[in-house]
Amino acid sequence: MTTANPNFLKLQNNYLFADIARKVAAFKQAHPDRRVISLGIGDVTRPLTPAVVQALRLAVDDMSVADRFHGYGPEQGYAFLREAIVQNDYVARGVSLSADEVFVSDGAKPDVGNFQELFSQDSIVAVTDPVYPVYVDSNVMAGRAGEQQGQRWDRIVYLPCVKENDFVPDFPSVRPDIIYLCYPNNPTGTVLSRAALQGWVDYARREGCVILYDSAYEAFITDPDVPHSIYELEGAQEVAVEFRSFSKTAGFTGLRCAYTVVPKALKISDGKGGQVSLHAMWNRRQSTKYNGCPYIVQRAAEAVYSPQGRRELQDVIASYQRNAALLRGAAGGMGLDVHGGVNAPYIWVGVPRGLDSWGFFDRLLQQAGLVCTPGAGFGAAGEGYVRLTAFGTPADTEEALRRLRNLY
Amino acid sequence: MTTANPNFLKLQNNYLFADIARKVAAFKQAHPDRRVISLGIGDVTRPLTPAVVQALRLAVDDMSVADRFHGYGPEQGYAFLREAIVQNDYVARGVSLSADEVFVSDGAKPDVGNFQELFSQDSIVAVTDPVYPVYVDSNVMAGRAGEQQGQRWDRIVYLPCVKENDFVPDFPSVRPDIIYLCYPNNPTGTVLSRAALQGWVDYARREGCVILYDSAYEAFITDPDVPHSIYELEGAQEVAVEFRSFSKTAGFTGLRCAYTVVPKALKISDGKGGQVSLHAMWNRRQSTKYNGCPYIVQRAAEAVYSPQGRRELQDVIASYQRNAALLRGAAGGMGLDVHGGVNAPYIWVGVPRGLDSWGFFDRLLQQAGLVCTPGAGFGAAGEGYVRLTAFGTPADTEEALRRLRNLY
Repeated sequence: MTTANPNFLKLQNNYLFADIARKVAAFKQAHPDRRVISLGIGDVTRPLTPAVVQALRLAVDDMSVADRFHGYGPEQGYAFLREAIVQNDYVARGVSLSADEVFVSDGAKPDVGNFQELFSQDSIVAVTDPVYPVYVDSNVMAGRAGEQQGQRWDRIVYLPCVKENDFVPDFPSVRPDIIYLCYPNNPTGTVLSRAALQGWVDYARREGCVILYDSAYEAFITDPDVPHSIYELEGAQEVAVEFRSFSKTAGFTGLRCAYTVVPKALKISDGKGGQVSLHAMWNRRQSTKYNGCPYIVQRAAEAVYSPQGRRELQDVIASYQRNAALLRGAAGGMGLDVHGGVNAPYIWVGVPRGLDSWGFFDRLLQQAGLVCTPGAGFGAAGEGYVRLTAFGTPADTEEALRRLRNLY
Repeated sequence: MTTANPNFLKLQNNYLFADIARKVAAFKQAHPDRRVISLGIGDVTRPLTPAVVQALRLAVDDMSVADRFHGYGPEQGYAFLREAIVQNDYVARGVSLSADEVFVSDGAKPDVGNFQELFSQDSIVAVTDPVYPVYVDSNVMAGRAGEQQGQRWDRIVYLPCVKENDFVPDFPSVRPDIIYLCYPNNPTGTVLSRAALQGWVDYARREGCVILYDSAYEAFITDPDVPHSIYELEGAQEVAVEFRSFSKTAGFTGLRCAYTVVPKALKISDGKGGQVSLHAMWNRRQSTKYNGCPYIVQRAAEAVYSPQGRRELQDVIASYQRNAALLRGAAGGMGLDVHGGVNAPYIWVGVPRGLDSWGFFDRLLQQAGLVCTPGAGFGAAGEGYVRLTAFGTPADTEEALRRLRNLY
């Protein structure tokens, strides 16, 4: 009989957000009259902006006539979008990249989930703790995580990000091959300063590691000392891959567009004394197993960089930033320990004494009809915290504040 | 230093269609005055139909206003599309499936390429020869193919489909765990009768194999004895996964939508004496590494099943079928050996004596400005043939016929 990949079977059946969805569904069934407000899953609420909608409409028109119809596109993305990305997200910040170092895709989650395929199975993986679960789960499925011991996997190197180290991970005692870093951080909402990130780039260069850098939330950065791209740091193109997304910056969670930068300067060992280019490997992976992001979606993403698109999205981001500031203020005013939310759409809130993170989740749901994300779902070091997101509507955010004030 | 996945490095750098593109680009540069007509890569030329365009426009409108905006959707696809698929593609043919056995995605290529992740690394894979390269390459990358010996891999079981067996694969002498079948076939354009496919289903049930059935071209079937879905055969839900795509049936090559059916009845070994559900495993894979097909694209796919959408697409398919008949006739009239093209958009043409398939490719390109796909690119048993596709415009197809007649 055909046999399953044993590494898949090591994963628990349920995924964090599925667990939350089940609890929320049960609450709604028991209380059909109460309106639940989600500060949980990080989905946006503002619609696509007019510039993006207009670009989509024009692209749909293209698809409706034979001489402007677009069939299979390049698996790596259309040049018009790759060029716009390089000019606006990199050259404008003093970073020099070529357009063919950018791979457009349908999401940062697929890219982050698939990228580990390029590395040998015995590679040692380091992740921060708490962490976005996809980094860990995709490596469990690939057989790199070893066995589960409590909340941790015995072949994964965990880098705790806790109050004691100001949420800046220390270098590990065991040298990892692959280091996942996400800044502005999901779930803590904290950031790395330029100096701290340069420290990690230098570490990776010294130790021969690859950094997989997820900067999906860079649009929320307000502090000028916080780098938007890892390539702002010296030497990063030799050691780092960067994942970006239009999901949170432009409201594309339902439209699906992202990109991954794989610099040509980034080489790893071929296991036989030579070196290979990760750029060439990712190109081969995408050519074989991916068929490109829809043309109409790439035209929409291009419009994000137009003068009108930029103005409109600044307003959208500013509205989410206002939500974050309000939620930070409310949680702080309740005497809770509050982190993040200044350069990120996430606020990391210490739970009241006597509760754990699922306990606080349950209290917020049952007593206030509010959904948060329990920190323990992001790893052992997430216990004692919950994550709030700032992606609600202004009205929902105000209502959430009112309910929080009533609760305490 | 971080080390590459050694299985990735076993693959040749170049992919069949990239090789062709390079040759065509060189020809165009040398002959800027000559117009090249492609009968090569299977991309469609007819634009999206009015029903699909209208659905896209309405969905874009939805995305532009807060109360109809759609953010993250279900990774498995929206219920409205999963239901439409089950009703129209299955129930209408007497096949009973539930909507949650259908997983909507952005392409059959990603689904086919990713599905092998669910199986143990030592699984034995069988493919027809010639074969769509993704089946083989994705297994090479996963370490299941062994070493390359000439055009073949020493751990892959090849099922030759040649004139001598009327392009119907014989059962292998070694029992495989996973069998890739694609019917109507890419590249040969041939089909399996109901009896022949039942034979494969029975074989898989007897031997405990999983069939990965690619029916991306079912819309081109004209013969009533040819099954559109493997689930029309008895017992198939216990052994088969089916991959379908809107690319060729509805011109979605640039819009990107497909689906994979994983019946809940399909179980494999967990390697410890128990059984696991492939449905649960694929659900976990997609939840972890995929984020769903864009809402607007799923609305467009739904419109394919509307009365207007169906009428329009029947006309589109009919026009490609006319091209196929014309190309079949022309190649036959030239005294060449011709297969396929009746129930499929592909015509498999034996090359003239004295040439191999790349040699005939070169002659057609240099002397007629026509691009075909060399059969050898699809495997050892593809040598001696080229693949022609019927997806051109009527005008281009007429011009191709004229050039072919002039050549011989």
